[in-house]
Amino acid sequence: MLASHRGIEISCLTSRSEAGKTVASLYPWLSHLSELSFEEPSGDALSSCDLVFYATPNKIAMTEAQTLLERGVRVIDLAADFRFADVALWEAVYGGQHSAPELLQEAVYGLPEKYRHHIAEARIVGNPGCYPTATALALMPLVETKALRDSHVIVDGKSGASGAGRSARADLIVAEASDNFHTYAADGHRHEPEMAHQISQMGQNVSVTFVPHLLPMIRGIEVTIYVSTSLTVDDARQLFQSRYDAEPMISVASPGTYPETRWVRGSNRCVIGLYQQRPGQLIISSVIDNLVKGAAGQAIQNMNLMLGFNESDAIPMDALSP
Amino acid sequence: MLASHRGIEISCLTSRSEAGKTVASLYPWLSHLSELSFEEPSGDALSSCDLVFYATPNKIAMTEAQTLLERGVRVIDLAADFRFADVALWEAVYGGQHSAPELLQEAVYGLPEKYRHHIAEARIVGNPGCYPTATALALMPLVETKALRDSHVIVDGKSGASGAGRSARADLIVAEASDNFHTYAADGHRHEPEMAHQISQMGQNVSVTFVPHLLPMIRGIEVTIYVSTSLTVDDARQLFQSRYDAEPMISVASPGTYPETRWVRGSNRCVIGLYQQRPGQLIISSVIDNLVKGAAGQAIQNMNLMLGFNESDAIPMDALSP
Amino acid sequence: MLASHRGIEISCLTSRSEAGKTVASLYPWLSHLSELSFEEPSGDALSSCDLVFYATPNKIAMTEAQTLLERGVRVIDLAADFRFADVALWEAVYGGQHSAPELLQEAVYGLPEKYRHHIAEARIVGNPGCYPTATALALMPLVETKALRDSHVIVDGKSGASGAGRSARADLIVAEASDNFHTYAADGHRHEPEMAHQISQMGQNVSVTFVPHLLPMIRGIEVTIYVSTSLTVDDARQLFQSRYDAEPMISVASPGTYPETRWVRGSNRCVIGLYQQRPGQLIISSVIDNLVKGAAGQAIQNMNLMLGFNESDAIPMDALSP
Amino acid sequence: MLASHRGIEISCLTSRSEAGKTVASLYPWLSHLSELSFEEPSGDALSSCDLVFYATPNKIAMTEAQTLLERGVRVIDLAADFRFADVALWEAVYGGQHSAPELLQEAVYGLPEKYRHHIAEARIVGNPGCYPTATALALMPLVETKALRDSHVIVDGKSGASGAGRSARADLIVAEASDNFHTYAADGHRHEPEMAHQISQMGQNVSVTFVPHLLPMIRGIEVTIYVSTSLTVDDARQLFQSRYDAEPMISVASPGTYPETRWVRGSNRCVIGLYQQRPGQLIISSVIDNLVKGAAGQAIQNMNLMLGFNESDAIPMDALSP
Repeated sequence: MLASHRGIEISCLTSRSEAGKTVASLYPWLSHLSELSFEEPSGDALSSCDLVFYATPNKIAMTEAQTLLERGVRVIDLAADFRFADVALWEAVYGGQHSAPELLQEAVYGLPEKYRHHIAEARIVGNPGCYPTATALALMPLVETKALRDSHVIVDGKSGASGAGRSARADLIVAEASDNFHTYAADGHRHEPEMAHQISQMGQNVSVTFVPHLLPMIRGIEVTIYVSTSLTVDDARQLFQSRYDAEPMISVASPGTYPETRWVRGSNRCVIGLYQQRPGQLIISSVIDNLVKGAAGQAIQNMNLMLGFNESDAIPMDALSP
Repeated sequence: MLASHRGIEISCLTSRSEAGKTVASLYPWLSHLSELSFEEPSGDALSSCDLVFYATPNKIAMTEAQTLLERGVRVIDLAADFRFADVALWEAVYGGQHSAPELLQEAVYGLPEKYRHHIAEARIVGNPGCYPTATALALMPLVETKALRDSHVIVDGKSGASGAGRSARADLIVAEASDNFHTYAADGHRHEPEMAHQISQMGQNVSVTFVPHLLPMIRGIEVTIYVSTSLTVDDARQLFQSRYDAEPMISVASPGTYPETRWVRGSNRCVIGLYQQRPGQLIISSVIDNLVKGAAGQAIQNMNLMLGFNESDAIPMDALSP
Repeated sequence: MLASHRGIEISCLTSRSEAGKTVASLYPWLSHLSELSFEEPSGDALSSCDLVFYATPNKIAMTEAQTLLERGVRVIDLAADFRFADVALWEAVYGGQHSAPELLQEAVYGLPEKYRHHIAEARIVGNPGCYPTATALALMPLVETKALRDSHVIVDGKSGASGAGRSARADLIVAEASDNFHTYAADGHRHEPEMAHQISQMGQNVSVTFVPHLLPMIRGIEVTIYVSTSLTVDDARQLFQSRYDAEPMISVASPGTYPETRWVRGSNRCVIGLYQQRPGQLIISSVIDNLVKGAAGQAIQNMNLMLGFNESDAIPMDALSP
Repeated sequence: MLASHRGIEISCLTSRSEAGKTVASLYPWLSHLSELSFEEPSGDALSSCDLVFYATPNKIAMTEAQTLLERGVRVIDLAADFRFADVALWEAVYGGQHSAPELLQEAVYGLPEKYRHHIAEARIVGNPGCYPTATALALMPLVETKALRDSHVIVDGKSGASGAGRSARADLIVAEASDNFHTYAADGHRHEPEMAHQISQMGQNVSVTFVPHLLPMIRGIEVTIYVSTSLTVDDARQLFQSRYDAEPMISVASPGTYPETRWVRGSNRCVIGLYQQRPGQLIISSVIDNLVKGAAGQAIQNMNLMLGFNESDAIPMDALSP
């Protein structure tokens, strides 16, 4: 995406483990970047950028961000270091001490559909997790209007295998994980506090039961959410449509249709469907591409806001389907 | 499975659309049956059997069963004609009039782990649906002991594509349905009344919200069930273990493990895991092979009971994995 | 692709079977086209275009092209009606009589890497088949330099399931065709004469044995080609590199790497690898995305040439991977 | 398979890396073995067996076999230590020195359809590789009758991902290797000398060009073989049918059908199809399950011969399909 952005120059790609290798040798499908090489992270190289993305493990960005900010570099962290306003909560979830607690206050949660104007002004943005993005967008119209009748929400999540990254794990090889399906972390997943925290910030306190599952496919997240509300499904659909009418990247599925992950494969869109089987209840199905709206695409969307580009510059909107 | 059963002779295979074709030409992988051919259904041929399986669309078995029973032939219906004791409920769900309402009273629901002795004596058995099997086994120990605190149960189900059968549907071809995931029938699926009805018969009235999803793989069903109970997860696990201790085909997953569909691929087992994220709540994950414990395997299990064989004769117990 | 092309306006989309439906209802993932609807094909609507694409079954374009050409509309046919210069050969392969034999002489084979300048001038272009594209690009440097020592070439081809289109075929549903692999048309496939004809036109007469196989995945074609040549593998690689040096969409894989279909998923690139196990022999592996360089992408590339745009305008070059 | 064998008791399962763990914890789908645990390999435990299978890396069995044989234990090695009669060839392919060259002379190649009687008498059997099994069975009727006109044979092979075992490799995870296809080792694979050596032993010297490919699925191997012969395809089919008429595990596909890997998924069968596109040529497609006829199933078949059981005892013949 960055390579196709007309306003951006990629001046530096860093990687401790792959330093010295070319992009072409590691990612032969990125022809536009074939000239670039990975280099060892260095403060000087990063300081010469206008903006730095951290796509690192948790607890890296928090140790480096302060220095960059002081040199006028803006930061988007794709890990979890800056997703909570509350230090104690962060420390409870991720363990250990946060090394930049004052930045936690300043950092903006990078969900443009909620915090567009804050993001544009932010020096540092915590890019949302994939499951929290799909879930927050599916609940935002309800909590903003305090339409939940019960503060407890059930989120049944399913993610493609790319959610686990590119690591060599025997349980993820094709022979084990394709043609297979199962829950994981059914007794508690780190995305649950992020969801509960961020959704509660939007207008109505919620507690969340979140059970993720691993899908035998590459990309895509679907969450099916069960809530209590006095809205009818038609009223709810109208509420969502008017809330998202001006949002180019969020769509509400027509009645009788069910959002499919392939509708958003490779795209930055989120599609939300609303259903009801009995009065008082609402069932919401929300799909995103975990690597785009759930990660890199949303990060570029945030960058566009921060640097004054059009919000959708270089953002893929149409899916690659079939 | 039948071909490998030492006590069974397959005397007749019927099919209106495939009459005259050999098994070998349609199913080249069934080498043991290569001599057999499909023939037009005929009352006489079927009447000479001890037992007839109906693996037909709904509303076929109900028109033919009475005649067979009168000639002393026992019947197992894999469709939905005999899954409800209540005619009005059946007619509400499937539409039209049931043509053998008196048999509905007599028919036994073919869930051996619940109705073993009734099945052994039954002339006619309604073989359970795939989702209802996975769900009923996951809730049975709770409803039998009236351990549910709330009568409402949420069932988030996921099924492999073989659940839709072998029909030529454009939405099921590889280019559309592999690498894809979505809900369907989120506003109401025919298996929901079967679940609610059958589970309520087991000891505690329940209402069910059931949302099925289509998995990009061939075999396997997983249901994640959300209930209210005052049991701790450890007490619940103990309850399940003692309830299923003597059941060779039902296993309770060890703490910290999550049932995977591949653990039961090709086998007649059901594996159940129990989890809790907050007091008062229980999360249950249950997996079966939709074509085995969810259909043909359970039918053979019922046949074994009806004909006096060992219940597990010719029943696959180990999965084909990887 | 067309939707993102800055120089193009899509004025008319036709479909007999889907007339009246919106793009949004059939292809919910194409958000840029959501305003458009399919309409009944009509000569008047098509005549008002500068260029018309036929993505129809064989034998449609040949009956309509003449009228459009007379009205000054240029035509690109994605079917096989205009892929042969030789009427007799076309009729032998596709049966029946060609209804516009004089256009067969005029039509240009739409392989830009070979016929760039002719395409730019052409009124009518026959867009190459997917397998022939992958194969022709893999053999072109050899036949142009008459480097084949034996006129017989073996092409072992493998295609993703999207190659069969979007039709409802029971043998293509997930339950049948995923986790499966097999040859088809091993005794003769319609793409073989196209390959032999077009490659022979490039400089050296060849006969081709072509055996296609169906892959349990969506997109991608790989052909493994076995030829006789006196070139060493290093000489062959050098030949290919210099032939394709200026071609942005063709890459030669580095020694020790093997082209993967995912390297070109969603992109218009072709990647070619060269190997040798014994002197006198060359093994060539060539990958494309059957729906992009093998169909729509190449058609847009041809359109760009015909209408005077940059050849790569709106052409995806980076793959969607993972 | 062993667990379901009525004549066999599994007295000892060894694993250096998993010693102390139960089968149930590592392979929860093997319910029949749930009581067993892995233990450290020890000569004494193994010496008390009648027969030991080595499913170890190359170069383990060759260091231990002599001791076991001396104690009267028979050995089947599933690795490559005993697949060549020729020490020099083995050392050229696998490197280093063979530690039991005298056993190489004695060991029998475990292809029952060729060496049934020698296997029954053997003290030590080298179980064939998966690709060599599929290829040897596809060529055996031709080389036994010296029907090849040219000694060079092209074998284009494709294997499911389980062929790479269960190791944690980043290139095999679902996100990288599903929805992907490519060659590997196109410049030379260790199975090529095994093929050439073993097929040459059957009656006609052959050289082999072998190019393997990785399929995005779990189980199954298909090889497409290109040979020269003066036989017509009908004569060739008749030759194969009469050669394999009495072989229950080998089938010849009917004209107009193409062997599919799912026809043999989980089964010990090999299905072979024969095709021709031009006179003088024969195209052979052969499918097996790489883990069954290509590994464990063939090993059990050999064990049955060695221990005097029926050759097909506990051998799965029907495939799990869909």
